[in-house]
Order: sequence, then structure tokens, then C-alpha cells
Amino acid sequence: MDIVQHEFEETLKRIQSQKDVFGVIVVKNNGDIITSTLDNRSSVSHAERIMKLADNAKSCVRNLDPSNELIVLRMGTKKREVLVKPGKDFIMIVLRKQNFKSLMRSIIANS
Amino acid sequence: MDIVQHEFEETLKRIQSQKDVFGVIVVKNNGDIITSTLDNRSSVSHAERIMKLADNAKSCVRNLDPSNELIVLRMGTKKREVLVKPGKDFIMIVLRKQNFKSLMRSIIANS
Repeated sequence: MDIVQHEFEETLKRIQSQKDVFGVIVVKNNGDIITSTLDNRSSVSHAERIMKLADNAKSCVRNLDPSNELIVLRMGTKKREVLVKPGKDFIMIVLRKQNFKSLMRSIIANS
Repeated sequence: MDIVQHEFEETLKRIQSQKDVFGVIVVKNNGDIITSTLDNRSSVSHAERIMKLADNAKSCVRNLDPSNELIVLRMGTKKREVLVKPGKDFIMIVLRKQNFKSLMRSIIANS
């Protein structure tokens, strides 16, 4: 295992070990799933739909300002939080329990 | 001004007064801009593109789980953070300076 691979595995372990995290999916930009803690069917449907959304978000950011770039996309939903980190070669999707404190900060009406 | 309108104005004022916030746009779901602190051209392009993205995000969440619902969408970008709060009648878009601490928490590799 080379250094890059080792660091990747360590990062994955660290993310998965967080108490709020219940799912991690890493998908190559060509759609191949590299690793996932979800069952196969959920992994495929999450990968497919979320990659499409991340592409839309990247275009949205770039169209508003060609010198800008998407770094991370977060969706606070009624049931959980979805974090999406698009990268050069792959995209990482992290599912975690809804953090209502963080959610309220996001809504910022009360921050 | 009725109570709802008053609360709306107060919420807007509170958000706009935050030191990191440099833009707020509120758009009716039919695309009409209710209020914006950006110039007309930027308001229209932001409203148009971000509403479309928020619709995609809503569909993505619902398609993955029909009983789930998008509450808030956040985009961390190289230059700034974009918060999107879709509502029943209107959508609120808040532009604020990139908060790198919050961004790193989002990426969660080091949290």
C-alpha cells in the first residue's frame, strides 16, 4: 500500500469512526464505487443522484463566477445531514445524523 | 404591516447585520425577487441559478427517501459560502464570507 493509499484509508477510518456518521461512500468520477458502508443498492442510488447534484452545484458556482469553485456541499434534511466533497478523481459522500445545532447555525436566523 | 411581515423584516435585518453576511436575496417560488442587497443583474442571475439548484437538491433528497425533505443547502466555495433555505412560498439565499473553521468541519477529515 503506497503513502497516498495509506492516507486515504486513515482518513476514511477517521470519518467512519465519528459517532454521528452512519454512512460513507467514495465514488470515482466515472461512477465506479470505490468503497461504501451502505448496501449495494443504496450505494448505487446515492452515488448516482448525489454525483449529478454535485455536478449541478459545481456548474452553478462556476456560472455565477468563473474564478470560483465548489469545495463542499452540505444538505441539511429532516432526517439526516449529507456532506459531499467533490475531488479531482473521486467524490466523497458522508451521511451523518442531523446535528440540529449546526442546522440552526446554517439557517442562521438565530445565530 | 402585519405580524408575519414584521417577523420577516426582523429576521432579514438580523441576518443582514451579521458581520460575515454580504448579501441576502429573497425570491418568491415563482421567480419574483422580493428583496435583495445585490445589484439587479446579480440578484437575477443568483436567483435563477440557485433556485434551479435548490429544486434539484429537493428532488435528490426526496428521490433517495420519499419521506425525507430538504431543510437547508450550504455550498462552501473557494471565495464564499452560500446558504439556501427553501420555503413554502419563497427561498432565501444568504451569501457570506467563507468561514474556514466551519468549512473544515464540513469536510470533517480533521474534525
